[in-house]
Amino acid sequence: MSHSMPELIGTKRDGGSLSAEQLEWIIAQYTADQIPDYQISAFLMAVIFRGMTDDELAAWTDAMLHSGDVLDLSSTALPKIDKHSTGGVGDKISIPLAPLVAACGVAIPMMSGRGLGHTGGTLDKLETIPGFKTRLDPEAFTRQLDELGLVLAGQSETLVPADRRIYALRDASGTVPAIPLIASSIMSKKLAEDLDGLVLDVKIGSGAFMKDVASGTALAETMVSIGRSHDTPVVGFLTDMDQPLGREVGNANEMVESIAVLRGEGPPDTTELTMVLGAEMLVLAGVAAGRSDARAQLDAAVRSGAGLDVFARVITAQGGNPAVLEDPTLLPTAAHTHTVTATRGGYVERCDALAVGRSAVRLGAGRQAKEDAIDPGVGITVHAKVGDAVTESDPVATVRYNTEDQLNACLPVLESAWVLSETPQQPVPLILGEVS
Amino acid sequence: MSHSMPELIGTKRDGGSLSAEQLEWIIAQYTADQIPDYQISAFLMAVIFRGMTDDELAAWTDAMLHSGDVLDLSSTALPKIDKHSTGGVGDKISIPLAPLVAACGVAIPMMSGRGLGHTGGTLDKLETIPGFKTRLDPEAFTRQLDELGLVLAGQSETLVPADRRIYALRDASGTVPAIPLIASSIMSKKLAEDLDGLVLDVKIGSGAFMKDVASGTALAETMVSIGRSHDTPVVGFLTDMDQPLGREVGNANEMVESIAVLRGEGPPDTTELTMVLGAEMLVLAGVAAGRSDARAQLDAAVRSGAGLDVFARVITAQGGNPAVLEDPTLLPTAAHTHTVTATRGGYVERCDALAVGRSAVRLGAGRQAKEDAIDPGVGITVHAKVGDAVTESDPVATVRYNTEDQLNACLPVLESAWVLSETPQQPVPLILGEVS
Repeated sequence: MSHSMPELIGTKRDGGSLSAEQLEWIIAQYTADQIPDYQISAFLMAVIFRGMTDDELAAWTDAMLHSGDVLDLSSTALPKIDKHSTGGVGDKISIPLAPLVAACGVAIPMMSGRGLGHTGGTLDKLETIPGFKTRLDPEAFTRQLDELGLVLAGQSETLVPADRRIYALRDASGTVPAIPLIASSIMSKKLAEDLDGLVLDVKIGSGAFMKDVASGTALAETMVSIGRSHDTPVVGFLTDMDQPLGREVGNANEMVESIAVLRGEGPPDTTELTMVLGAEMLVLAGVAAGRSDARAQLDAAVRSGAGLDVFARVITAQGGNPAVLEDPTLLPTAAHTHTVTATRGGYVERCDALAVGRSAVRLGAGRQAKEDAIDPGVGITVHAKVGDAVTESDPVATVRYNTEDQLNACLPVLESAWVLSETPQQPVPLILGEVS
Repeated sequence: MSHSMPELIGTKRDGGSLSAEQLEWIIAQYTADQIPDYQISAFLMAVIFRGMTDDELAAWTDAMLHSGDVLDLSSTALPKIDKHSTGGVGDKISIPLAPLVAACGVAIPMMSGRGLGHTGGTLDKLETIPGFKTRLDPEAFTRQLDELGLVLAGQSETLVPADRRIYALRDASGTVPAIPLIASSIMSKKLAEDLDGLVLDVKIGSGAFMKDVASGTALAETMVSIGRSHDTPVVGFLTDMDQPLGREVGNANEMVESIAVLRGEGPPDTTELTMVLGAEMLVLAGVAAGRSDARAQLDAAVRSGAGLDVFARVITAQGGNPAVLEDPTLLPTAAHTHTVTATRGGYVERCDALAVGRSAVRLGAGRQAKEDAIDPGVGITVHAKVGDAVTESDPVATVRYNTEDQLNACLPVLESAWVLSETPQQPVPLILGEVS
């Protein structure tokens, strides 16, 4: 059936709902270049103000999901579970989490993205491993998942092409911040992975897209609802992103911390979040009786080195050098270090994730625009986190850099991240809520 | 100065205001093809939901006004006043009004549009006069205004190019119905005529864009406010468009009725509205002491034939045959007539302007799309208006048509226009309000 796009825009603009058939028509016609960008951007802006009903959202996501190929992973005998994070600063959880969960008998067909703005991307971090390839053809992807239970790949170009187009248009037309659009973008990509379950990590705070628990809860609930309408169980955690996660920010820095978590030597927050999200994946997969059983299995995979073994095999299968797991000096590094010190004594009241993330972009660890190159060896080690006591001249961060320009661009923003108080400060809770 | 369009869209989307400099930048860059349509359509949709402040609207209108040429009519000694109607069914007021007002010593540099949808356009009606040209170059326009005090022309391509582009984009992107966008579109075109004053006829009812007095008042107030910020006095009238204006709908039909008004032989509502709007133009021009003096001058211009004389000279100057004023059979006509009769006796409770307007489009008197041709000779004469008493088989309308297809397309819609009641009905008031 054919529709008038100005009329459909008008229906949404005036607060009406569109049918599944109308929404499918929009996605199909846009993907086929039969609807101009200026109609879609006006429609998306109307969605920002009017929202979408649950039925609309299910139909819209389904139409995006079927705008291209959908993986068929039915040859994989294991339950297939993935994790998605809405993105933050120092969020390297996917890297230690995936091998540990795979070591417990869950298949993870993980497709990740690159960093943009102050949030890092898993692909950039994985590519610090010499030789590691994130581009796999569909047969190689399926074969590796069957053999190793884990693939760490980039988004396939043939999956969910509608999302790629709509995402680029949203970025250029000021139509990014709308829960239905964010939720359908994430869920269409994840549902195209042919999953049996999904764990979401919705970041909340200055370094995250969602600034407060209420909006994060709304986003998580929306994604859980989309999962339900596709018969895919989804559990969402709301977690803190007001300060950076863990100690390391930057691509090689975060790979070092990820390997430490796999060895049982990671910082407390990175380790704890890996375990919380990983345990939920085991429960969703049905390979653990409950969360405490799941935690015990994951702890065992750390202690036995089973997680490290899976990661070594995945690195080898994807063309990388697994020796980095034993010898982190094989990772890219930077020529110089600079120490940022406390200007006075006190307690850390704030270590602003957004400031640290932005300073890392200025340092060269991230991108302002999609086309930008990154410097994989530069990074920031955070020594003082919320609740820590510092005395004057104590180091609060160490910057690894290659050029003075990098350092000079980074420092003013980085130094603004800390707020010290004269009174003792409580550490911030890591897990802020849960939606299922 | 340079701006990021996604950021400016985001500011408006989130309820902020843009500076005059930012709005001028948007208009200038869009007119110069430096901003893509998809950013402007998203911005316009955000304006639909967030509106514009008075300052924003003044700056936006001013930027549109200066996106191309602006007329310089300083050589015209007389005060320059124009009238604009937001459009309706049977609204031919410009045609008798302009010669009568010009006959009283006011210069009218009138630029009109074509009909689209169920609303008619003055240009289409003028072009029923054999030979009449509505395309004048700027020198001919100025010379005729100086000599005759009246030009009846089409919009110049060089005036307000930004409005032409934005109007087309709004039409295609579902971003038409927003008072700031409607008001700035009208006012930028009218202010480009270098006026000393403007009378607005804001139509209210089923056949108009504005369906109720509240929204019509808001639109009129917005245009009056834009006029104020450009030191141009604007007076707005809210007038009924729930039933067609006058008796005639269709291009030649409306020219016949217009000539009748100039002779003092028009139907009461068309005549009254011509006098009300014309009187206000004389008052704004300062050529009448007040409304009753102005009415007396207009009545005299009818009785003396001075209005008809001005029209004859304008027709001659623009290449047309002024003999139509004496012999309406020189106008285009249609081959056949069909009479629509009352199905029962009663009082007319409703004669729906929208139904009559849509039936006229189906008959060939108007356009569904800009590219469509019109049939200048077809039209509808309305015999029964609200409050009239009819007995069964009384004619309620006469249709002039050329082909059976025209008639068959028209009739079902036309016949649905009348609602009869068993109890006597009051005629609807013509003038619903006034804003200045």
